[in-house]
Amino acid sequence: MNSPHQPAEPKADKAGVRRHNLSLVLRTVHEAGETTRAAVAARVGLTRAAVSSLTEQLLERGLLVESGKTFSGQAGRPGTVLTPAPTGPAGLGVEINVDYVSVCVADLAGADRVRRSEPLEARDRAPAEVLGRAAALAAAVLAEAAARDLRPIGVRLALPGLVSGGTVRQAPNLGWNRVDADALFGAALAAARPPGAPALPVASDNEANIAALAELWFGALDGIRSFLHVTGEIGVGGAIVLDGRLLRGAHGYAGELGHLTVAPDGPRCRCGAHGCLERYAGQSALLRAAGARSLDTLAERAAAAEPRTLAALDEAGRMLGVALAGAVNLLDPQAVVLGGIYPRLMPWLGPAAGAELADRVVSGLWPPDAGRLRPSSGTATTARGAAALVVRDVLADPLAYGG
Amino acid sequence: MNSPHQPAEPKADKAGVRRHNLSLVLRTVHEAGETTRAAVAARVGLTRAAVSSLTEQLLERGLLVESGKTFSGQAGRPGTVLTPAPTGPAGLGVEINVDYVSVCVADLAGADRVRRSEPLEARDRAPAEVLGRAAALAAAVLAEAAARDLRPIGVRLALPGLVSGGTVRQAPNLGWNRVDADALFGAALAAARPPGAPALPVASDNEANIAALAELWFGALDGIRSFLHVTGEIGVGGAIVLDGRLLRGAHGYAGELGHLTVAPDGPRCRCGAHGCLERYAGQSALLRAAGARSLDTLAERAAAAEPRTLAALDEAGRMLGVALAGAVNLLDPQAVVLGGIYPRLMPWLGPAAGAELADRVVSGLWPPDAGRLRPSSGTATTARGAAALVVRDVLADPLAYGG
Repeated sequence: MNSPHQPAEPKADKAGVRRHNLSLVLRTVHEAGETTRAAVAARVGLTRAAVSSLTEQLLERGLLVESGKTFSGQAGRPGTVLTPAPTGPAGLGVEINVDYVSVCVADLAGADRVRRSEPLEARDRAPAEVLGRAAALAAAVLAEAAARDLRPIGVRLALPGLVSGGTVRQAPNLGWNRVDADALFGAALAAARPPGAPALPVASDNEANIAALAELWFGALDGIRSFLHVTGEIGVGGAIVLDGRLLRGAHGYAGELGHLTVAPDGPRCRCGAHGCLERYAGQSALLRAAGARSLDTLAERAAAAEPRTLAALDEAGRMLGVALAGAVNLLDPQAVVLGGIYPRLMPWLGPAAGAELADRVVSGLWPPDAGRLRPSSGTATTARGAAALVVRDVLADPLAYGG
Repeated sequence: MNSPHQPAEPKADKAGVRRHNLSLVLRTVHEAGETTRAAVAARVGLTRAAVSSLTEQLLERGLLVESGKTFSGQAGRPGTVLTPAPTGPAGLGVEINVDYVSVCVADLAGADRVRRSEPLEARDRAPAEVLGRAAALAAAVLAEAAARDLRPIGVRLALPGLVSGGTVRQAPNLGWNRVDADALFGAALAAARPPGAPALPVASDNEANIAALAELWFGALDGIRSFLHVTGEIGVGGAIVLDGRLLRGAHGYAGELGHLTVAPDGPRCRCGAHGCLERYAGQSALLRAAGARSLDTLAERAAAAEPRTLAALDEAGRMLGVALAGAVNLLDPQAVVLGGIYPRLMPWLGPAAGAELADRVVSGLWPPDAGRLRPSSGTATTARGAAALVVRDVLADPLAYGG
């Protein structure tokens, strides 16, 4: 999913070169969605003959398919069309958030082929129980995927907390501390699947990071490659993408916008500090301030211009704008993308947030009409992003997973 | 100054390859400080014969010098020692800050060979006048450099404001708006120099950015490559270095830590917003809060434990810590480096800043004893950093400047 790719250096050994070039061709087809051998050759700088040979191997291994359909988007003689295989190796993505779990299987094209979500109140519940419930849903999705001849080769787990090396260091909104999520979920998934099902490797990650990658890969960013992505959930997550790459930070904990201080002496946050953005603009804080039980109620009352609701949304927008202005002053991104609960609330919290950005960004490049503050596409789900991260492993080494 | 370097790709044309490889050898010697042909060959992956030929050309052009001194730091037969030439092409760096100007000439080794500073009250003075005064000092330094056979090939101007494309977009503490600094300084420098002196290209940059690069290149960072650098001056500047590279942002305005909001309804800043960090932790704000006329007075009273002074420094440190915690939550750097006025004030504002970091950084990785909050080395001046940026142009293309 990165580009441009380069053919392997001549110094590498022969088997290594083949492995590298198979990946190169598969990734090129993946990025194009559909293409021809000739277009692949032109793109990657290998000969047509070499690309044809590599393509045959990928077809044999079931990682590509071709159709007789001609393709007129390129100059020269039309060829048969190559696409990533819609069956075979795939990725399983699992998002565990504070009050729901979502599971997705993505195929080699990155398409979300199987999707399931259900409510799951995770707050202050034992991690093993939450991960067990998520694993049960994942097992059901895996059975459905198998029926469609999709074989996930691994699991990416997206969690609302600081995650590093398979461990959740801290997830304030879950009340989790030092939870070995990879191991717990892996064991629960093995237990939930039929006997003899192959064990799947599990890797945990921060859900805000994955949401940002999902937006980069599957959203509608109009070519934007450097942005701050904000996910409004029970908490507020953030992730920074610079030139198309996620900024992970020195320890893997970058992007924690929700814990930016917006009022040094403000109310205490679940993280232990005072006046964090999350305490003003997170879903729980917002519902509390508005006196609403659910997001649906909140949106209905806002649409009916109920004063307390409008005031709560305005204040949340204002504090969001204060924090975003700080982040923009530091990072100077092309855009700020608001995901999670925010797109649906933009009519009411967007103006206040935009006004703070206009006032506080010192470059003066963020007036409300600049369009740099934008809602996420809504189609790029975190679970799909997580599944797509697993698919990248197949793209990176087709020999390990194909055939 | 980046590494590792690679020899040119075989595809480039012959003259291009030679140009590239001359730069490669010169940069390698520059980075090593002193080295041998054999060590260069081992480092860059070219043959010993090729490196010898390239070295001869750089010696002929006066960009390298060799001495008979043997060098015992490497295995094998000792050779003559190569060092960057102490004369010839050089860089001129000029820092214009709110109340002083500093000028430096750096040689090909990056050493600051000529240095001059003088007080210059730049606030609300006409830009042409300020730049003229700075150019006069620069002309005097150029004359001194010429006497030492150093020939700066260009000027890098460091300014306390938002700079892009040669123009100061905004410099709140100078009261400048849309000032064409490159052109004004270039004309003033030409006027201040003897008739017939060659015109020098001028490029402006943000002083906080250059201060961070100076610290990276000439400071004492113990291998730290990702850090937030803060310069306390009349205003508060910031710059972000990630993996040894400056984050410039989408429009060149990244790093504006001084305008991070620490109190949304705080006092009005010169940038037009309210409650910016600068209004609490900048030099002017600090002196005002302490009732002191100068930094020397402030430091003396702090050392004598005068209560109002200690309270002012504690509050500045607290607000600095609030802003830094926000930046750390976003960026997860290895360290925060405090430069400008802060190193000397660390005994009094450091504890409060450190306490806020410990409280507010959600990863919990910033307890006071972690040593991640550190003073800058003090030896890496901004003017030297600016001069070194010019030297990089010579290192990048020795054929354009040598001989």
